[in-house]
Amino acid sequence: MTGKGRFITFEGIDGSGKSTQARLLAERLRTQGREVTLTREPGGSPGAEEIRDLLLTGAPDRWSAETEILLFTAARRDHLERRIAPALAAGQVVICDRFADSTRVYQGATRGDLRGLVDQLHGLMIGREPDLTLLIDIDPDTGWRRAKARPGAEARFEDFGAELQARLRAGFLALAEEAPERIRVIDGRGSADEVAKAVATAAGPMLA
Amino acid sequence: MTGKGRFITFEGIDGSGKSTQARLLAERLRTQGREVTLTREPGGSPGAEEIRDLLLTGAPDRWSAETEILLFTAARRDHLERRIAPALAAGQVVICDRFADSTRVYQGATRGDLRGLVDQLHGLMIGREPDLTLLIDIDPDTGWRRAKARPGAEARFEDFGAELQARLRAGFLALAEEAPERIRVIDGRGSADEVAKAVATAAGPMLA
Repeated sequence: MTGKGRFITFEGIDGSGKSTQARLLAERLRTQGREVTLTREPGGSPGAEEIRDLLLTGAPDRWSAETEILLFTAARRDHLERRIAPALAAGQVVICDRFADSTRVYQGATRGDLRGLVDQLHGLMIGREPDLTLLIDIDPDTGWRRAKARPGAEARFEDFGAELQARLRAGFLALAEEAPERIRVIDGRGSADEVAKAVATAAGPMLA
Repeated sequence: MTGKGRFITFEGIDGSGKSTQARLLAERLRTQGREVTLTREPGGSPGAEEIRDLLLTGAPDRWSAETEILLFTAARRDHLERRIAPALAAGQVVICDRFADSTRVYQGATRGDLRGLVDQLHGLMIGREPDLTLLIDIDPDTGWRRAKARPGAEARFEDFGAELQARLRAGFLALAEEAPERIRVIDGRGSADEVAKAVATAAGPMLA
C-alpha cells in the first residue's frame, strides 16, 4: 500500500469534540481494514512528549511566545520524522488530533501577532501540510458546557475564557477560508454519531 | 550605565581554554569595577537549562539534526530574553561561553550540511550577534591533551575524535574569515595568563 498514505488532522476549540471524532474515524477505517496511526499534538513521539512536558507544565509565563513556538516546532519536527512520515511511507492513514493549524491559531490569537513568524518557521522546519484537515466547529458556549462535563475538567476552568474561545473559533474559521481546498468545516453541534457521519462523508473521497 | 552594555562571546574547540578565558576576563573586568554577567550555552537561564538537559542526555541519535537545531535555538531565545538582554540593558558586560557560532560550526561540521538552515533560523528567531567574539584557537592535539587532563574527563574520550576536532577548528577559522569585524582569533597555545593578556588586548578597545 506504499504511496497510499493519507495524513488527516482534526482541529477545533476545546470541547468541540475533535478528539472523539479523531478516534471514531480511526475506528471506522480500521473496521474497513485500513491501517491507521492515531496520534495527537503536542507530543506523539517519545521525544515530542518530553518537549510537551516542558510546554504544558510550570507557570503560564514560563516561556515567551517565541520560545514556545520554537518548542512546538521542535516537537512537531520530531513527531513528523519519527512517527507520522514513517507511517505515511508504509501506506497508513495517519489521523492527528491537532497539528500546525493549532499553533497558527493559538499563537496568533492568544500570544501576540506572531502568525507571520509561525508561518515562516513552519515553512523552514516542517513544510508538510495535512492532506485533509477537519475543523470541528462549535460555538464556545456549547464547547464550554461539554468541557465542563468531562471528568477531571475542573482544574481547566480558569483557562476557559469564553472571549478567548470565541477568538480561537474565529481564528480557525479564518484559516479554513484561507485554505478551502485542505480544510473542511464540520458542524459539531449534533451527537457524536451525527458528526461522525459528516466527518466520514467529508473524508470519503480522499480515502477512496 | 544604560546603553554601555557589551556582549562578548568565547568560542573554540574542546580543550581550547575558552571557558577559563571567559572566567579570567570576567574577573579582570570586575576588578576594574565593571558589572559582569558570566554565562554559558547551551543553558544559562532556568528554561534553557531544562532544554539543555534534553539536548545533552540520552542516546546520540535521540534527536535529528533539525530537531536539535530547533531546541538549541529555543534555549538560546530563552537565554537571550531572560538573562542576556536584561543584563545588557542594565549596562553590564555579558560574557558568554559559546553562542550561535558553536551551532553554526557543530551542526555544519558534524550533523550534515545544515549551515544554511542554522543561519535562517538564527535570523528569524535570534537576530542578535555578539559585539565581539573571541575565538581561542588551538590545534586539536593540544586541545586533546588538555581535555584529557581534566578531572572527570574520561567519560568524554570516545567523543573526542581528532579528525572531528580538526574539522571543528577549521569551521571556526572559516567563520572568523567570514566575519573579521566581529570575530578575533586568539592564539591559545600559551599559558592561561599569556592568553588572558591577548584576550584583554583584543577586548580592550570595545570595552573602553
